[in-house]
Amino acid sequence: MFVIGEKINGMFTRVQRAIEQKDSGSIQDIARQQLAGGADALDVNVGPACDSPEKTLRWLVDVIAEVTDVPVSLDSPNPDLIARTLPHCKSPVIINSTTADDEKLNKLLPLAAEYRCRLIALTLDKSGVPSDAQARLELAAKIIARCQESGFEMENLFIDPVVLPVSAAQEHTVQVLEALRQIKLLTHPAPKTIIGLSNISQGAESRSLLNGALLVMAMACGLDAALLDPTDVSLRESYKTAEVLLNRTIYCDAFLRPHRE
Amino acid sequence: MFVIGEKINGMFTRVQRAIEQKDSGSIQDIARQQLAGGADALDVNVGPACDSPEKTLRWLVDVIAEVTDVPVSLDSPNPDLIARTLPHCKSPVIINSTTADDEKLNKLLPLAAEYRCRLIALTLDKSGVPSDAQARLELAAKIIARCQESGFEMENLFIDPVVLPVSAAQEHTVQVLEALRQIKLLTHPAPKTIIGLSNISQGAESRSLLNGALLVMAMACGLDAALLDPTDVSLRESYKTAEVLLNRTIYCDAFLRPHRE
Repeated sequence: MFVIGEKINGMFTRVQRAIEQKDSGSIQDIARQQLAGGADALDVNVGPACDSPEKTLRWLVDVIAEVTDVPVSLDSPNPDLIARTLPHCKSPVIINSTTADDEKLNKLLPLAAEYRCRLIALTLDKSGVPSDAQARLELAAKIIARCQESGFEMENLFIDPVVLPVSAAQEHTVQVLEALRQIKLLTHPAPKTIIGLSNISQGAESRSLLNGALLVMAMACGLDAALLDPTDVSLRESYKTAEVLLNRTIYCDAFLRPHRE
Repeated sequence: MFVIGEKINGMFTRVQRAIEQKDSGSIQDIARQQLAGGADALDVNVGPACDSPEKTLRWLVDVIAEVTDVPVSLDSPNPDLIARTLPHCKSPVIINSTTADDEKLNKLLPLAAEYRCRLIALTLDKSGVPSDAQARLELAAKIIARCQESGFEMENLFIDPVVLPVSAAQEHTVQVLEALRQIKLLTHPAPKTIIGLSNISQGAESRSLLNGALLVMAMACGLDAALLDPTDVSLRESYKTAEVLLNRTIYCDAFLRPHRE
């Protein structure tokens, strides 16, 4: 499982404060904690309330690059912000994200190819979140076709079928699981799949349990990657256990010990 | 999820001792604990080392019937033992189990029909445990065909694709998950599916984590029922969470509270 750490996000108070105070040490601490928790890449999101997103995103990317060269996931709904930040990044970049909308694909696909980025693509368009697995698959098929036309390789494409909060849209989760399974059947070689895990438990109690159960279920449906909190020890134990059960890592009695703190 | 409690089994020291000492109170305590943990039925197994299995099984069934009328699952590889115990049972019976072998099916299918039992059928035959999902499905298809020929209803058939210990046969688990998914596609209406959950963690550390992750993954593959330990609170929280995510029970903030002790 490819894990993108979600914690460097201006939506979190600690990160917002660090941004305001130009406190690079705090950002670097959060980066290190996520890497210690097994993150393969770090998501970077300036948050919804940022006054100067371009300057802030560059600063965050620089501050992170001082402590690690793992890929950064530039997380913004604004393709121009991603476009302007890309040339500035020293580490490999994951573009997070495009939708299935033509204007986003037209802008981000050439950039992803030029800068050899991985690209996360949401099965969304201007008409909103698809109601079921089938509608998600239709948007996934459109995204795949556009990638194939432009020679963008499937191994660098991560399709995200859009997890919604169970507290608000309970009927969507089975549709997401079915979409995850079927996205892998749309073409060969298949694209990769990813979910933004914590969305499932927005506004809910028992967040860690909901996150853990969804992650394990999604892995049983072939999930390749997730944006999640790598510092959640119980979540990590869940997916390490699932990896053993799915025969992706070799079983030994002590398989969890390296992942406990 | 239909939960069969696994704890009344002579393999466990406490049960073995209660059998030896004719200590009906201890057996009834274990029955009550499992019912409090949400068991829908109780498995009854005299254990491998029992001197007088027929007498013991009858005694266990009687002792349990004094405190509950939930179904008992008569658990034995010996179809004659099940046949001789069946007329004696007051509560509904689940026959646990037949294999795909003709001699077992010929003996147990008519009995299941006569006594209106549910029937657990393992995708096993004399040649041993199937190596992959496909071989499991072939045996499942044979079992289904035999049930259909004899008018035995699919809703009363529980097919078990045989979970093996991850410590000894790690490659089997993905095959079991794939079999669970495809068994539901073999006929319409589909048979039910079941697993003996704790087998996955025999001889392993972190048993509860392995059990919980497999259960949640199997539920994502359509699992209907499981033989498990209903007194394991963390396991219960896992499957109650999975039921919410799979939209089988309605989400509310407090969905776990009734299941915590």
